[in-house]
Amino acid sequence: MRYRIKIEYDGTPFHGWQRQDGMDTVQQRLEEAAFPFTKVPVVLHVSGRTDAGVHALGQIAHFDSPEDLNCFRLQECMNAHLKDVPIGILEIEKVSDKFHARLGAIERYYCYKILNRRAKACIDTSRVWWVSYQLDTEKMHTVAQHLIGKHDFSAFRAAGCQSNSPIKTLNNISITRTGDLILVNVAAKSFLYHQVRNTVGSLVWIGRGYWSERDFLDIFDACDRTRAGPTAPACGLYFIGTKYSDE
Amino acid sequence: MRYRIKIEYDGTPFHGWQRQDGMDTVQQRLEEAAFPFTKVPVVLHVSGRTDAGVHALGQIAHFDSPEDLNCFRLQECMNAHLKDVPIGILEIEKVSDKFHARLGAIERYYCYKILNRRAKACIDTSRVWWVSYQLDTEKMHTVAQHLIGKHDFSAFRAAGCQSNSPIKTLNNISITRTGDLILVNVAAKSFLYHQVRNTVGSLVWIGRGYWSERDFLDIFDACDRTRAGPTAPACGLYFIGTKYSDE
Repeated sequence: MRYRIKIEYDGTPFHGWQRQDGMDTVQQRLEEAAFPFTKVPVVLHVSGRTDAGVHALGQIAHFDSPEDLNCFRLQECMNAHLKDVPIGILEIEKVSDKFHARLGAIERYYCYKILNRRAKACIDTSRVWWVSYQLDTEKMHTVAQHLIGKHDFSAFRAAGCQSNSPIKTLNNISITRTGDLILVNVAAKSFLYHQVRNTVGSLVWIGRGYWSERDFLDIFDACDRTRAGPTAPACGLYFIGTKYSDE
Repeated sequence: MRYRIKIEYDGTPFHGWQRQDGMDTVQQRLEEAAFPFTKVPVVLHVSGRTDAGVHALGQIAHFDSPEDLNCFRLQECMNAHLKDVPIGILEIEKVSDKFHARLGAIERYYCYKILNRRAKACIDTSRVWWVSYQLDTEKMHTVAQHLIGKHDFSAFRAAGCQSNSPIKTLNNISITRTGDLILVNVAAKSFLYHQVRNTVGSLVWIGRGYWSERDFLDIFDACDRTRAGPTAPACGLYFIGTKYSDE
């Protein structure tokens, strides 16, 4: 039997999603929270392996179990075992064994949150990137539209990226402002390592007037990470959700 | 010279707004943060004295200073001194000495946030009240409309209330839901002690079906705090802002 779970977490205290020896990770916390109910060890397959400090509002994972489990009771059990850590199980449902949280994804959604004002974040500490100088979001949005489509994203690819190719297809990117809060929403089937955070870092250099549109496009076209902007901090990034082919 | 300041804070680590000996309060933190710039002690007069754990997105206060201060530099100085606590100065401006943050208020706005789902709050820990049983927000909104107007709010008045009278005029109350998040927005010139949190506690008993509309109105009309619902926790309450007569 295959089970699909939807998860929310605050990434601040964790060393990212993926299990690592001796580290506190989201995957390990979840697998340990399932065990008292499943009685057999479960292995989670996840849609978006988030880095340390990155949050998720709608992470999707699946696991297999030989047992026919009561999904509601499993959810309640896992949430009870997770009560002292900022991880919550939002939904669990039985799915066909054709479903695969990682391989079946046709589009993934991330949101990057920037707080743009002189005063630091007070309510949203560790949940936004605080940028104190004024950003021109309309310009950021306009320039970002050039990134939509199939391109070589090497300029925004971090060292250590395990993707076979730097060619990715960005389906959508939008930059919107509501008061002091700027949201960068992106959609693609998949992303290079740190692609979203590196894109945001360079767009912020546009927004502060440090780069012109021409500068940005030259650097993007040069496919040279060393010339691009900084990596935006993990704390502003949220994994929002995944679209699957059967949906 | 009189200065008006707009403040955001996460109330979690503080013993409320008002200075108390030996306690960490928002007022003391702010007055101490102003001193290195003003060089003379300042005394803040505030629009809404929040309790321990209550947050503010747009708290308003004023203080007087014999000096003609540069507002932007004062704001930067205060924010620098507040960098390690979740308090931020959003705006400072010179105002007429007719302005009074507390006495001049003609309407105050609070928002109470409820997270209504099986899984606890993960991203918004300490920033919402987590209610795990399903709430009927339409019913809560409908019943709440009876509270609008001038009434004896004794049923929602906490012990220790310093108001001369339990008669208050509630200008507006609305209960809205977006996904799992329920917002209770209220507006009045002033409130009794714990009036908003006590109102929310009783409305939640409506929302879970524990009380009928008739029960709620009987208890409200009886003006007896002991028969009304629980006090909703401080962590869900936000002071949003104040309207002044000159605006």
